[in-house]
Amino acid sequence: MASFSRLIRFIATDNKMYYGDAILPTGITDAAKATKANLIEGDIFSSSARVNQQKVLDVKKLLAPIDSKDVRTVRCLGLNYAAHAKESNMPIPKFPILFYKPVTSLSGPTDPIPIPAMAQNPVEGIDYECELVIVIGKPGRDIPEGKALDYVFGYSVGNDISHREWQIKKGGGQWSLGKGFDGWAPFGPAVVSPKLIPNPNNLRIMTKLNGRTVQDSTTADQIFGVAKTISFLSQGTTLLPGDMIFTGTPQGVAMGMKAPVWLKDGDVVEVTLENVGSCVNKVEFETKAEAKL
Amino acid sequence: MASFSRLIRFIATDNKMYYGDAILPTGITDAAKATKANLIEGDIFSSSARVNQQKVLDVKKLLAPIDSKDVRTVRCLGLNYAAHAKESNMPIPKFPILFYKPVTSLSGPTDPIPIPAMAQNPVEGIDYECELVIVIGKPGRDIPEGKALDYVFGYSVGNDISHREWQIKKGGGQWSLGKGFDGWAPFGPAVVSPKLIPNPNNLRIMTKLNGRTVQDSTTADQIFGVAKTISFLSQGTTLLPGDMIFTGTPQGVAMGMKAPVWLKDGDVVEVTLENVGSCVNKVEFETKAEAKL
Repeated sequence: MASFSRLIRFIATDNKMYYGDAILPTGITDAAKATKANLIEGDIFSSSARVNQQKVLDVKKLLAPIDSKDVRTVRCLGLNYAAHAKESNMPIPKFPILFYKPVTSLSGPTDPIPIPAMAQNPVEGIDYECELVIVIGKPGRDIPEGKALDYVFGYSVGNDISHREWQIKKGGGQWSLGKGFDGWAPFGPAVVSPKLIPNPNNLRIMTKLNGRTVQDSTTADQIFGVAKTISFLSQGTTLLPGDMIFTGTPQGVAMGMKAPVWLKDGDVVEVTLENVGSCVNKVEFETKAEAKL
Repeated sequence: MASFSRLIRFIATDNKMYYGDAILPTGITDAAKATKANLIEGDIFSSSARVNQQKVLDVKKLLAPIDSKDVRTVRCLGLNYAAHAKESNMPIPKFPILFYKPVTSLSGPTDPIPIPAMAQNPVEGIDYECELVIVIGKPGRDIPEGKALDYVFGYSVGNDISHREWQIKKGGGQWSLGKGFDGWAPFGPAVVSPKLIPNPNNLRIMTKLNGRTVQDSTTADQIFGVAKTISFLSQGTTLLPGDMIFTGTPQGVAMGMKAPVWLKDGDVVEVTLENVGSCVNKVEFETKAEAKL
């Protein structure tokens, strides 16, 4: 794997797309603030990928740090923080609860979150979920917990946007439909190397809605930590380079409130993970016309 | 899209992999019986793909007709036949029930079905599900039902292998885990062009377990037919070329029996779809050693 610190994907000032290693001022860890990056050459998941220290590019716009074309499967955990299970009126799970999002749900750290007509009726129920995201770096199956962190390419922060009506009430019990719309999994701003995050289960994780903090917790409160999650999900199942795992959200989602404040058109939602950075995404209700391909 | 009739992927006698259009004797429609095929040249999902009528290859071994590398998302419907919903003690769904299988679950029409250690303990609960499979041929979003069949690349038959204990009891209500193991979605033997199947909701569909018929129904009994399914799933969600949709199974699964006959080591399970053909897969319990990558 490449020896990057904070992998970003971006449009440079020449209007071309590049992978790069974010160059940040001392004391700054949020790659969303990167204006320059060292070019990363070669397939990012291959051993031949390298950071070109001589080639510095100007960042014009950050994209999702991994191209969705390079992602095979997006796995997600449900109810992986005790306080969130409680606010959801659900028991603490005995095993990790697995669901998926389609690759088309992935988007970048500043992209709008499009709300299609189907999720506007009823408008009630659009919710945020800040999550630590694992990116897998090499193929593995039946991975022992003690070796699981060797399979990590890096960490990111994502927002598992969810329409509670479709997720819980109208999906026949399966959460897939209400979580899988285009652009409902923004992540970024970088994929941060595990060498910078030796312990992923000791990071502050937060969501701000229009500037107001609504989720504020730590990944130390995960029921199933990163190593256990990778090990468990790899049982009988090959994890591939580029696979992503959204590891669940802490308490503070709208669903858990007595008077839920659902996301509405124009809202700005910001998810932040310590030492990783922030995604700031605006909720945009689609008109019928926009919804067409 | 290519003008194939029955797209297969296979190892030829030169031990290389090819895509081809199966050559079958008159009166035979099951591509599992193909010994020869016309070479298909070019990316199968591009308009430049063409069947080379001059180039005939000998088929040595059939593979999954679409390479999993070319598949982005595998969607599946649950409880999409009324009699199966009834045998599952579940209400008739008002909307299609969506779940996913990972691309690593895909395998070919004669591949063994590996049962990992995790699904052997308890051994009770391994079940078969014959399903009509849709392969999407071009990108689409918010597709009207009346135009949905234009997006079909072809049809196949698949087996949605399911471990009921993990699917229903230990998965926290989400079906993903108990259905997603490596090789738990064999499909094939061909992807049959819609020009040969103008009405996909009028096909006999069956499963034989060790030669004995256990499922025998028709896709006419689907609650949500092919066009409605594509239209529904494309709401707010871009379907991509190579996406697959497993459209649910009819009654007759082991789960629905008073004394369920679960799949066991060495069983041979055959799923058949009229005018498409058969997949014949042997259940193989893994030892710990085999389970490693």
